[in-house]
Amino acid sequence: MSGASTWQSFLDQSLAHEELGVWLDFSGLPAAERPDAALVERTRRALAEMAALEAGAIANPDEGRQVGHYWLRDPQLAPTAEQRNAIRQAQHQVREFAAAVREGTVAAPSGRPFGHLLIVGIGGSALGPQLAAAALGRCSDPLEMHFLDNTDPEGFEQVFSRLEGHLDRLLVVVVSKSGGTPETRNGLEETWRRLEGAGLKPPRHLVAVTGEGSALADRARVEGWLATFPMWDWVGGRTSQTSAVGLLPMALEGHDVEGFLAGAREMDRWTRSADPQANPAARMAMAWYGATGGRGRRDMVVIPYRDRLSLFARYLQQLVMESLGKEKDICGRVVRQGLTVYGNKGSTDQHAYVQQLRDGLDNYFLTLIATLEDPREADAGGPTAGDYLLGFLLGTRRALLDGGRRVITLVLRRIDAFSLGALIALYERSVGLYAGMIGINAYHQPGVEAGKKAAAGVLELQAALLEHIAARADRELDAAGWAEAVGRPEMAVEAHWLLEHLAACGRGVRRVPAHPAPRFRSTVD
Amino acid sequence: MSGASTWQSFLDQSLAHEELGVWLDFSGLPAAERPDAALVERTRRALAEMAALEAGAIANPDEGRQVGHYWLRDPQLAPTAEQRNAIRQAQHQVREFAAAVREGTVAAPSGRPFGHLLIVGIGGSALGPQLAAAALGRCSDPLEMHFLDNTDPEGFEQVFSRLEGHLDRLLVVVVSKSGGTPETRNGLEETWRRLEGAGLKPPRHLVAVTGEGSALADRARVEGWLATFPMWDWVGGRTSQTSAVGLLPMALEGHDVEGFLAGAREMDRWTRSADPQANPAARMAMAWYGATGGRGRRDMVVIPYRDRLSLFARYLQQLVMESLGKEKDICGRVVRQGLTVYGNKGSTDQHAYVQQLRDGLDNYFLTLIATLEDPREADAGGPTAGDYLLGFLLGTRRALLDGGRRVITLVLRRIDAFSLGALIALYERSVGLYAGMIGINAYHQPGVEAGKKAAAGVLELQAALLEHIAARADRELDAAGWAEAVGRPEMAVEAHWLLEHLAACGRGVRRVPAHPAPRFRSTVD
Repeated sequence: MSGASTWQSFLDQSLAHEELGVWLDFSGLPAAERPDAALVERTRRALAEMAALEAGAIANPDEGRQVGHYWLRDPQLAPTAEQRNAIRQAQHQVREFAAAVREGTVAAPSGRPFGHLLIVGIGGSALGPQLAAAALGRCSDPLEMHFLDNTDPEGFEQVFSRLEGHLDRLLVVVVSKSGGTPETRNGLEETWRRLEGAGLKPPRHLVAVTGEGSALADRARVEGWLATFPMWDWVGGRTSQTSAVGLLPMALEGHDVEGFLAGAREMDRWTRSADPQANPAARMAMAWYGATGGRGRRDMVVIPYRDRLSLFARYLQQLVMESLGKEKDICGRVVRQGLTVYGNKGSTDQHAYVQQLRDGLDNYFLTLIATLEDPREADAGGPTAGDYLLGFLLGTRRALLDGGRRVITLVLRRIDAFSLGALIALYERSVGLYAGMIGINAYHQPGVEAGKKAAAGVLELQAALLEHIAARADRELDAAGWAEAVGRPEMAVEAHWLLEHLAACGRGVRRVPAHPAPRFRSTVD
Repeated sequence: MSGASTWQSFLDQSLAHEELGVWLDFSGLPAAERPDAALVERTRRALAEMAALEAGAIANPDEGRQVGHYWLRDPQLAPTAEQRNAIRQAQHQVREFAAAVREGTVAAPSGRPFGHLLIVGIGGSALGPQLAAAALGRCSDPLEMHFLDNTDPEGFEQVFSRLEGHLDRLLVVVVSKSGGTPETRNGLEETWRRLEGAGLKPPRHLVAVTGEGSALADRARVEGWLATFPMWDWVGGRTSQTSAVGLLPMALEGHDVEGFLAGAREMDRWTRSADPQANPAARMAMAWYGATGGRGRRDMVVIPYRDRLSLFARYLQQLVMESLGKEKDICGRVVRQGLTVYGNKGSTDQHAYVQQLRDGLDNYFLTLIATLEDPREADAGGPTAGDYLLGFLLGTRRALLDGGRRVITLVLRRIDAFSLGALIALYERSVGLYAGMIGINAYHQPGVEAGKKAAAGVLELQAALLEHIAARADRELDAAGWAEAVGRPEMAVEAHWLLEHLAACGRGVRRVPAHPAPRFRSTVD
């Protein structure tokens, strides 16, 4: 490609927003995959649907819910006065509570200011706060942050050993819309035990972010927790970073919450453009469509060249894959859609899997994220560390393009609360538009619910096995035998690992080596 | 599927090693994709090649190198006495040095024991130590660990702000085989400046892990660093965790280095079996082949249900994708091979992208990793947090199998140094065998070198631009104009972002907004 045509293509295929400090370059995508008239028309329809959604249409039909995350940063857009007030009131409550914690008027029972913040939540209740903490956190932040985002007893142990000696100054934010997420409930129970074990009164350390009328909201009220912040059924977990879920931890750390909301609001304005070619979210969605045939045929690799954004691809994994990974389209036809996302950070990833991106499988399209401003560096005369970082990005981009690979380049002026808000809003709308273009509901997650049910069935099997084995201390059977004995022969493999686990933990079951499979018996002889 | 046939298939398709505490279940893969006679024969040949490699054959022909990571945990297998002695001596040196640091005979210049450990390295020089630190680290470890694994000035800032006030007790391990990796060199320069800035003598804090005769080795000798540990050209970065690269940080933290080597050695023995069906690495490689057609047609998703293993999939991204992501096969034919890997941890990922795995695209096969032993948990009567963790794994496994998806289940008795060694060795050999089966060289990474060269070209362009613009303070051009002026018109887009970066950092270039692209001029008027 000649220099002139490359430059011209860059000028033609770029979008810029100087005030936002965001630039997008789609010139690294094959001309043959650029949106044709049909795709532009399809995108126009998706934009119209999005406008209806923003006006309050029920965009999540199987759950009968509105989709209102765009209202969170521009409450005047919410369709009812009740919603507008609820958003403004929640933001006010976040600001007031965070100020009170920072000023010490809300303090630990000892009267000392809170010094540690533990977020208990999973999925949409943790990934956004984790991303924001990594992107914006400084050592000088008032609260040291910790997360319980799983139900791993060893993980609990690790977090609480870091908190040893600090529990009296621990503020805990429990995030769960329903209040019934088992991982979060287990994290809360563990936290409660630890606080009690340290002679503390847990409610004086606890804050809830949850749906009105949820079991968690009830519990917080009855037990007199420090505060409760709302989640609404018109905000999904994976788009909740501009609700109290994301704002509360940011405000507690003194990050620029207003700037974050302003960045998202400005990006919303830009991405509301009805002209698909001038709308960066529409361009993004059309690029995804072009690169994957609208069928997820290529993976989306996202590499921000900044340590602070090293969790961004993981955040997008949830936002994109949970939104788009659906069995059926909106008409109920089986389509098995999706768009796979992975990535960490550059240039680090260049010393890992970029070898494959460059030389191997042509099964992806890449989004490179650069930032322009560096902190002031020591001037050693030659190129700075930041020059190398950008140099690696540009060198990799060029090498991939020369190899016929697909690259989108996204440039941010800097990483701060404002640009983080813009970045999140850009991808939220891109995902929503892409879902509209391929005709699926981006706002439910039936598989997650089904997974919870399957796990519940496994735990029921365990309870049945434990009861049965305790009652038949004379019998020694393999897992298939015990599964049969409790009337679940089809769950023999599950029974096997459950019994191995119970035996390894010394909980009522003893393991007797045997061929072809070990046998198990009660520890009571 | 009836219970009996499921159980029978589990018995037929599982491999167990009680002493290692490792179990593998391949029954969750379609019967139609099980190895046929041709694939078994192909695997037999790969096993024979592997045996030759272990005996010292040149397995990396374009670089003319032996591949000796298996010798590291069983030095008697190394083909020459020189290699055997080198391995034993390095392990001895690691043990002695770590003991001296722990006992305080090697201490900070102030005489106080070292309290912080900074690893400066990238790719294979960082991912293994990061994995081991996450998997084995405890709060009570003697040294708090930090990493510089990039050339991001903001990332440097974050790490050194955490180290503020602790630099006098900082031990730094710089890891680079060639000593020329720019990210690592920049990390070292930054560290040097910080130590000097704190009035300290850098060499008294520095340790090198590097190739004999490298620039880094020379520098360490001339400047009198605390110690230098060897890397050899017959050990690749991505398989260096059982060399000093991995062992030194583990030993400094007091982790069980002997156990780690023993776990790897035992797994090597098991995976050396010449019978593909009885060899877990061969079974793994055949499963990958079956699921992807030997062409990487499906992504490999890896989800360990343990926080401690949350970096394992990222470690595998490097090991697998850098090894397999190649343009040409061993005969020089263009094949564009690879195998995409991603994953984080369960059950957390169930609240993110598992929605897509379950309901959406059938473009992956999944490896679930379970562990049997939990720490002793408070007995609240009902299921424990660990029961939920296993319950989610088994429930997800069942749901995915019912949906026709592909699942390999890998079970570890516990996570400790021994099982981590086994796990790494299992995947090292699986990758090597798979590479043999598809006929590619797993032990080079030409794309990484090419990426470095491309970046160097970008940095040269920047130097030319800076010089040219400074010399023509009267001119104001857009990036295409300046690129033309320095004789690199084909690099106009690169010039654009370089100039935007320099202008944003206030380094000699001023930006003048213009349409369709901003112009740039010297800050010297």
